[in-house]
Amino acid sequence: MLTNPLKQKWADGQPTINGWCSIGNPFTAEIMAAQGYDSISIDIQHGALDYSAALPMFQAMRASGAVLMARVPWLDPASIMKALDAGAMGIICPMVNTPEQAAEFVSYMRYPPLGQRSFGPTRAGFAMKGYGVQANDAVLAFAMIETAQGMEYLEEIAATPGLDGIYVGPADLTLGLTEGRLPPGFDREEEEMLAAIRRIAEVCKAKGIYAALHCGTPDYAAKAIGWGFNMTTVSGDARLLAAAAGASVARFRELTGAAAERNEKGGY
Amino acid sequence: MLTNPLKQKWADGQPTINGWCSIGNPFTAEIMAAQGYDSISIDIQHGALDYSAALPMFQAMRASGAVLMARVPWLDPASIMKALDAGAMGIICPMVNTPEQAAEFVSYMRYPPLGQRSFGPTRAGFAMKGYGVQANDAVLAFAMIETAQGMEYLEEIAATPGLDGIYVGPADLTLGLTEGRLPPGFDREEEEMLAAIRRIAEVCKAKGIYAALHCGTPDYAAKAIGWGFNMTTVSGDARLLAAAAGASVARFRELTGAAAERNEKGGY
Amino acid sequence: MLTNPLKQKWADGQPTINGWCSIGNPFTAEIMAAQGYDSISIDIQHGALDYSAALPMFQAMRASGAVLMARVPWLDPASIMKALDAGAMGIICPMVNTPEQAAEFVSYMRYPPLGQRSFGPTRAGFAMKGYGVQANDAVLAFAMIETAQGMEYLEEIAATPGLDGIYVGPADLTLGLTEGRLPPGFDREEEEMLAAIRRIAEVCKAKGIYAALHCGTPDYAAKAIGWGFNMTTVSGDARLLAAAAGASVARFRELTGAAAERNEKGGY
Amino acid sequence: MLTNPLKQKWADGQPTINGWCSIGNPFTAEIMAAQGYDSISIDIQHGALDYSAALPMFQAMRASGAVLMARVPWLDPASIMKALDAGAMGIICPMVNTPEQAAEFVSYMRYPPLGQRSFGPTRAGFAMKGYGVQANDAVLAFAMIETAQGMEYLEEIAATPGLDGIYVGPADLTLGLTEGRLPPGFDREEEEMLAAIRRIAEVCKAKGIYAALHCGTPDYAAKAIGWGFNMTTVSGDARLLAAAAGASVARFRELTGAAAERNEKGGY
Amino acid sequence: MLTNPLKQKWADGQPTINGWCSIGNPFTAEIMAAQGYDSISIDIQHGALDYSAALPMFQAMRASGAVLMARVPWLDPASIMKALDAGAMGIICPMVNTPEQAAEFVSYMRYPPLGQRSFGPTRAGFAMKGYGVQANDAVLAFAMIETAQGMEYLEEIAATPGLDGIYVGPADLTLGLTEGRLPPGFDREEEEMLAAIRRIAEVCKAKGIYAALHCGTPDYAAKAIGWGFNMTTVSGDARLLAAAAGASVARFRELTGAAAERNEKGGY
Amino acid sequence: MLTNPLKQKWADGQPTINGWCSIGNPFTAEIMAAQGYDSISIDIQHGALDYSAALPMFQAMRASGAVLMARVPWLDPASIMKALDAGAMGIICPMVNTPEQAAEFVSYMRYPPLGQRSFGPTRAGFAMKGYGVQANDAVLAFAMIETAQGMEYLEEIAATPGLDGIYVGPADLTLGLTEGRLPPGFDREEEEMLAAIRRIAEVCKAKGIYAALHCGTPDYAAKAIGWGFNMTTVSGDARLLAAAAGASVARFRELTGAAAERNEKGGY
Repeated sequence: MLTNPLKQKWADGQPTINGWCSIGNPFTAEIMAAQGYDSISIDIQHGALDYSAALPMFQAMRASGAVLMARVPWLDPASIMKALDAGAMGIICPMVNTPEQAAEFVSYMRYPPLGQRSFGPTRAGFAMKGYGVQANDAVLAFAMIETAQGMEYLEEIAATPGLDGIYVGPADLTLGLTEGRLPPGFDREEEEMLAAIRRIAEVCKAKGIYAALHCGTPDYAAKAIGWGFNMTTVSGDARLLAAAAGASVARFRELTGAAAERNEKGGY
Repeated sequence: MLTNPLKQKWADGQPTINGWCSIGNPFTAEIMAAQGYDSISIDIQHGALDYSAALPMFQAMRASGAVLMARVPWLDPASIMKALDAGAMGIICPMVNTPEQAAEFVSYMRYPPLGQRSFGPTRAGFAMKGYGVQANDAVLAFAMIETAQGMEYLEEIAATPGLDGIYVGPADLTLGLTEGRLPPGFDREEEEMLAAIRRIAEVCKAKGIYAALHCGTPDYAAKAIGWGFNMTTVSGDARLLAAAAGASVARFRELTGAAAERNEKGGY
Repeated sequence: MLTNPLKQKWADGQPTINGWCSIGNPFTAEIMAAQGYDSISIDIQHGALDYSAALPMFQAMRASGAVLMARVPWLDPASIMKALDAGAMGIICPMVNTPEQAAEFVSYMRYPPLGQRSFGPTRAGFAMKGYGVQANDAVLAFAMIETAQGMEYLEEIAATPGLDGIYVGPADLTLGLTEGRLPPGFDREEEEMLAAIRRIAEVCKAKGIYAALHCGTPDYAAKAIGWGFNMTTVSGDARLLAAAAGASVARFRELTGAAAERNEKGGY
Repeated sequence: MLTNPLKQKWADGQPTINGWCSIGNPFTAEIMAAQGYDSISIDIQHGALDYSAALPMFQAMRASGAVLMARVPWLDPASIMKALDAGAMGIICPMVNTPEQAAEFVSYMRYPPLGQRSFGPTRAGFAMKGYGVQANDAVLAFAMIETAQGMEYLEEIAATPGLDGIYVGPADLTLGLTEGRLPPGFDREEEEMLAAIRRIAEVCKAKGIYAALHCGTPDYAAKAIGWGFNMTTVSGDARLLAAAAGASVARFRELTGAAAERNEKGGY
Repeated sequence: MLTNPLKQKWADGQPTINGWCSIGNPFTAEIMAAQGYDSISIDIQHGALDYSAALPMFQAMRASGAVLMARVPWLDPASIMKALDAGAMGIICPMVNTPEQAAEFVSYMRYPPLGQRSFGPTRAGFAMKGYGVQANDAVLAFAMIETAQGMEYLEEIAATPGLDGIYVGPADLTLGLTEGRLPPGFDREEEEMLAAIRRIAEVCKAKGIYAALHCGTPDYAAKAIGWGFNMTTVSGDARLLAAAAGASVARFRELTGAAAERNEKGGY
Repeated sequence: MLTNPLKQKWADGQPTINGWCSIGNPFTAEIMAAQGYDSISIDIQHGALDYSAALPMFQAMRASGAVLMARVPWLDPASIMKALDAGAMGIICPMVNTPEQAAEFVSYMRYPPLGQRSFGPTRAGFAMKGYGVQANDAVLAFAMIETAQGMEYLEEIAATPGLDGIYVGPADLTLGLTEGRLPPGFDREEEEMLAAIRRIAEVCKAKGIYAALHCGTPDYAAKAIGWGFNMTTVSGDARLLAAAAGASVARFRELTGAAAERNEKGGY
């Protein structure tokens, strides 16, 4: 029977850590999938990749046992259904701002009569035993709340039948709630942002759905678990690689006393 | 005029750090190239990539200003000349075990009358102003000494006209010199390996060529600089990413006390 | 003059068989195109592929003489127009549920004044002599009826000016009409499904448009031809390959009496 | 500080020439970027390419210093935001027919509070120093006026806050304004089309925004500059290559007197 | 501990069936790997693919549990070592005609002191737990005997230390032994070819190594098992797909009585 | 029956023009193939491409009717046989310097008993009707003479049984014959180079094989036809595109009087 191991872990009260792939490559995906994450999400929205890269990444991570998910670029039936057919066991949908959008999102995730997903799990059917209409029970629908309007409708969105959880993207939520007053970024410490983030976890709990938070560090993630989040993403492949390589160069410069004319480091 | 900035840095007594790309993707390459390395080498030998991946990686790193090089799979004219035509300003050639092999290697690097490189720098000509027969002076030829036979002929190999340097791969060198008695790996601390590695640096200096060492950590690399190495590679993209992601997961588990049934971590 | 050979065949009363590509590869496409199909459709909706794979598939099949078409992921101008510009001589559009959607679909297929297709047949112009605004007459617009709502509006949809035909996907149609009571699949034998499928063929005939059915076997397809369908798709590359390889393994096991611990077979 | 060099050039009264990439390949992009264009646009709408090809093209052109832009397939948040995250410093949006559509387009280009762009410039952040919310000031939003309806609303569209310019596609504009009476194509000489094209430049000037025209030849482009256009695109990679190769073959045939049975030339 | 399941199966007297991938695509590979084969080999020699396609195919098949191998294009250290580093647990090397070539082949398969394989199992190390110098015991070296010269040296080749088996390609062997008198093809029934093929199985058995035969049908493969072959390949993805699709079209034509002007079927 | 149209044209005394692909993209290939060339060669040696790009290029050009060939990177059985299996009807082999190398090259081109080509024309068999051992008669073997040593052995090389022609690369030939005294380039006008080039055409004629010359312009090509060359290549895709785009920009600058700070043009 097709099940989603994340649901069992959360039922057991176990917090989970989600890996994040922004690099469009099956080998980086396979490396990520070998590090012990409970789940891994391919970021088709902001990642430097699209469906054509995501497909071999799903294949390369299949053997790892991690639950594979995708963030789609926008609330759009084609990108959601194609990600599911490719094998995603969960979809994170950005910019869900109203209950109507939440209902629309959920409808794309499930076969009739629950929704309007079109049937044809071409790759999922080869990759997962027992994949068929029962996928309705196994796939996870995460809506992102990341605007002022989304926060306004938080309770209604969270009450959408078939919605499994809310995923918080602190960069956009900060821009949205503060109208650009605070800069985007993860691991917010401002009172107003902490209040918003914690409120989302509480509303999710009240409505009986899961709460997930995108974090920059494991230490912040651990705090979020304490606030009631079930799943936390901690950084992602592009940032992890940049930070590790940058630290390696810096340490070498420090040790060798090199006053080298250095190339500028990039990253945002 | 086409020049190779590494030569100037070494002439100025500046040690350099070389980045290492084993992942076949232009975005990881662009991330690596943004971290301040003096040079970056694409590993077409052991990396999970071939020419078709290396080409867009060279393109993606061009803007960074880092000197771009390639390790080819074997002493083979096709792979050496194609890497040069694609824009490599240096070639690291594995398993150069005899003076004859060193001379053959060098001949593939230079246009007549110095060598037998075939003319047609299709991409290099568009990417680098002034690329033509004067590339003979700018490209760097690094032979890898990594077998017992290579060590035996070390002085003769180092004396090969046109050879610019020797690049040491400690994993193979250890397997080769100890006939498998010691396990492969970087950052050797055994007396016999230290002696071999330091002897290579000394012979290079005596012959007036450059010495380079593949290292696992910046701290070991700094020691190697002290032994007279001009260039050190410190880890590489695949290992840096795996280590950073693995540490992130481990820290999360530690902080959340999760006795999760974990996926096995991979890596060698 | 640019023409569509399918139209001539149907005018001659000749039933046609359509090949189906769910594998995103130009070599599988070239193999399929060598088997004698009248037309071949690339499934950009449920196939494990997107535009980037479809483009070289169109190129690889060009020499075969088969009429090339595409099923797009959803009723969306970008995917329809890009498939046409890439050389599709017909578009199969999923989930057309209302006459308004049918009219919108048709508008994306034709240049003004008939529709709102944007002009720029970049690859089609190189691949097909005489491609220009006259493509309006040559490209085929097939709407998929596959929901209860679609069946309700069947006659109005079939009467949409510019619509060339209706393509029936029995899996979704079954899920939609029975609200999930019957499992999805091809080659339906239930009375209610047979009635619905045959009614579509009859309405198409009455409205003077073409009818097409997605089938699992040539035997069922032949029956459908008898019901008035003009075109039938019979299985597809992924299923054909899986079935043939699976049968080969099974026959080997049977003949060699191997009680091998077998890998589980996949597929849906 | 992140700036857009095109703005400075236009402020200095300098007309600019924009290169056009319809071929999905980083090497053709690198070749184009080496020819001295002020800016280069990747045509994701009609070009034989999608996001997966555009990404390495942006990377390959980065070193050139040309301002990189993209034409997206349609007014769609996903394609606009993904092109921006990939590094596009300007977006050309087809088929903007109403002020509402223009406002929607502009909203996808800017982070809150100006618009609704989602934050996560994954590749842009590595490729451009200082990329962040300040990108709001640097990216250029060009709406295409190419239908009768668009012309009707020209002044209102041009007055959209945040819109930087109007880009004219003469092929579609001709089809749209003449209802197919005149054939599509560049470099119009008909009075009615000249009037329409020149009126767009005038309205842009009056509203304080930029005007751009897609041309077939440098001579027509120079005339357009005289009419007040700030930027002109002159042909594109696919047409330039076809014309140059075709001329080479024709000249050879002429000189060798060959009455060869020739392959038909393609192109539109 | 890293082991090769094929060795255990053969030790248990179990004949095995090997799948064959000539299509360069991870989805066809994943489909093949879902059909119950004991092992699957990617044909980098005659398949329409190279290393860049083989890598994601190995990744996509990893979860299946089938033993993954590769046929390399020629006796060449680069292609052999790169296939091993990519995760191949066995190498089939074409055109091994002399004992010296057999020894050379084997030397490329094993780390020192057994051979001269260079250390750096970049992808294999992430994909397989415990991959390191112990891979020496797990990887299988199959030499192809397919020329008159190879047959002449059969016993000496079979006695090469470190060689695990001989793989018979009947097409080349027939061309080679009969100097082109008999046409190439599988499933030979001529006395002289049967004798040659059976003699190889006997010599393998005598020397204590494995024998493998490339077959066209499961029925012939079963006969080969009876002659003492341990492993048989039965057709391959390209032929299986072509045959299945061709049969589907033929059956449709037969049932519908269509005297259609058919496209020519291809295939060799 | 499988034939090579070039042979018929040359038998009819018709000079031919060969297109040249250095860009690794099936769409540029399709554009080139639409321009009326008698044959088109993919440059796997100096082109910015390898086998993985050449394969879809062969597919995209198949419908054009042009004879498709490849220049391989080096005298190497793997690259020659893989190009043939992919559908090349001729191979241009660089750096053939001795009769022994010429004989080795020819042996890789033909199935036994004529040569040692391995049988398995996987893609060629689907793409070309009747492809099998009879390919021996249809494929063309062109050796490149481009060194002093090659010129020394010219007559012996030209007399190699099975060699179909000699292809002259003037850039390398100039470097080789003048030991770097003259710069590389096409369309030589120096007496010594003219003498060498014309001598090759004469020797080819005397030995009954074909002569081909790589040229930069149709005018020089026409002269070469006058000297007895059967086939001429005239520039190639990368140079044609660069020249056409560069001329377009220059003309625009000239007409608009722009003293723009221009990006440097690239190219060699």
